[in-house]
Amino acid sequence: MNDLETYLAETADTVDMALYRYFGNAYGELYKAGEHLLLAGGKRLRPAVVFLAAETVRAGSSDDLISAALALEMTHTFTLVHDDIMDGDATRRGVPTVHTKWDMPTAILAGDVLYAKAFEFLTYAIAEDRARVKAVTMLARTCTEICEGQHLDMTFEKAGDAVGPLDYLEMAAKKTGALYAASAGIGAILAGGNAMQVDALYQYGLNAGIAFQIQDDLIDLLAPAEKSGKDRGSDLREGKQTLVAIVARERGLDLAKYRRTLSPADVAAAIAELEEAGVIREVRRIAEEKVANARQSLNLLPDSKGRRYLDELVEYFVKRSF
Amino acid sequence: MNDLETYLAETADTVDMALYRYFGNAYGELYKAGEHLLLAGGKRLRPAVVFLAAETVRAGSSDDLISAALALEMTHTFTLVHDDIMDGDATRRGVPTVHTKWDMPTAILAGDVLYAKAFEFLTYAIAEDRARVKAVTMLARTCTEICEGQHLDMTFEKAGDAVGPLDYLEMAAKKTGALYAASAGIGAILAGGNAMQVDALYQYGLNAGIAFQIQDDLIDLLAPAEKSGKDRGSDLREGKQTLVAIVARERGLDLAKYRRTLSPADVAAAIAELEEAGVIREVRRIAEEKVANARQSLNLLPDSKGRRYLDELVEYFVKRSF
Repeated sequence: MNDLETYLAETADTVDMALYRYFGNAYGELYKAGEHLLLAGGKRLRPAVVFLAAETVRAGSSDDLISAALALEMTHTFTLVHDDIMDGDATRRGVPTVHTKWDMPTAILAGDVLYAKAFEFLTYAIAEDRARVKAVTMLARTCTEICEGQHLDMTFEKAGDAVGPLDYLEMAAKKTGALYAASAGIGAILAGGNAMQVDALYQYGLNAGIAFQIQDDLIDLLAPAEKSGKDRGSDLREGKQTLVAIVARERGLDLAKYRRTLSPADVAAAIAELEEAGVIREVRRIAEEKVANARQSLNLLPDSKGRRYLDELVEYFVKRSF
Repeated sequence: MNDLETYLAETADTVDMALYRYFGNAYGELYKAGEHLLLAGGKRLRPAVVFLAAETVRAGSSDDLISAALALEMTHTFTLVHDDIMDGDATRRGVPTVHTKWDMPTAILAGDVLYAKAFEFLTYAIAEDRARVKAVTMLARTCTEICEGQHLDMTFEKAGDAVGPLDYLEMAAKKTGALYAASAGIGAILAGGNAMQVDALYQYGLNAGIAFQIQDDLIDLLAPAEKSGKDRGSDLREGKQTLVAIVARERGLDLAKYRRTLSPADVAAAIAELEEAGVIREVRRIAEEKVANARQSLNLLPDSKGRRYLDELVEYFVKRSF
């Protein structure tokens, strides 16, 4: 492991331990349902971004922001619980989704509890009062944006061929970018960052999050299932409006023929066709553009360990295969 | 109209106008769904409690707290939108519920947007930073309690005869009492109230809210449908674990025979049976006890117009017929 990987692993441990401490002995079905996905693992990247953004605007430990880091992870988990209901997904992180293991009403409520806990924990951050108010405002606005992004994503199903690259990028910015933006922005706000620093880190997170979402689409297609833990080629099969599908359509490719059960050979044939037409290369180029934008924002900040790690992190976002 | 009624009507107008200003020109289906119930009327009692609690701890106008008052109304509306999905209810406030007019995924998201807007608007209150942080913590904890209350209410359906009066009161405290408690508590916090004042007003709201919930059960049974706008006797028909049903069971009455389509004569017969056994009287007595508790909390505070109105308001909670 390189330094960043070690840092991420240590941060994930810290976050996991804190989450277990607070939620590990859930009493009653509502809390069991609430902690189910929260404690089912995950890379804990948003908490890491909170800490690293804080360490970019001030030196020293960010232990005082642990509850804010947990708040961002809880927000992420609440959106997963509700999205899984809306999308009708049966598994996530290798475990049954909340509405599958319990039922739809319990899953709505479990998500709502995590939503509340996110705001509660954010107010427990050890920081100036004014900074905490600003952080709450930012998280609240972000939650609205995530809902808008999820709603856009749902409308894409009906819009079909009318969805263009800019629609996709707007959706990715809201659905995934906004929470990374808020993670970085809130880390900076709570650490006492000034408006320029907060904005630079917010923009970093926004672009990094968009790149992350694009990479998620590529992983669904390219990564072996045993590595990604996902159902390979599921986006193709479902005819989802990913950036891959949109760019393919722009280049005259017809992916409708893959909207059926796909063997590994079928997926390989689809990949070959997409590579031949330069689709994968173009999608990677767009992701790299977002990575470059994210790194450019970091250039506004003085050098620090936090900044270096954030710089590496966004590279990792588009190199990871799970 | 007496003075309190005039005050409530004026406050409702103020709240309605502010809500229209912010949400009246919704663009896109997500926002149309979000504002649907919010702008469908409602008594705006929680905003009134925010203002009156503030006016109990300090003299003068509470215009500076309008965004906090809206936040409490938005919180209430978000819980209605999600509850209607869980309970499968088709109409509310005389209009189709959000998941009926749109669909379940849009209703989940519309509720989630109102949830976010509630926290966003709360941070816009014109008050000390520390007070705003405290208010956010209180609202977040309250949202968790409301979820617990709704979950308890759902478990009552399966628990059936095992549900006792204390279970009911716990449910009512969480599902309805908590948000009235937070309305009063947040009004007091943002107006600069001290810990004793905040606690007294919180306890006032908690007991007032429980009384409100008990009265809701009585209205379902006793009020003519044309007055309440509700489907009279629906709780009886559905075998709901209301305080009426629980007290009736304790007194050996079997209400199971009313779990069918009920004519007005059937409802009248049920009422006669319940009155004969002293059930209605006992339920009213419990509600009056909560009213007395609420008024006792007010006695801790110096006399003021706000206090007098709150005193009258809790009386109105158990006298209203809609």
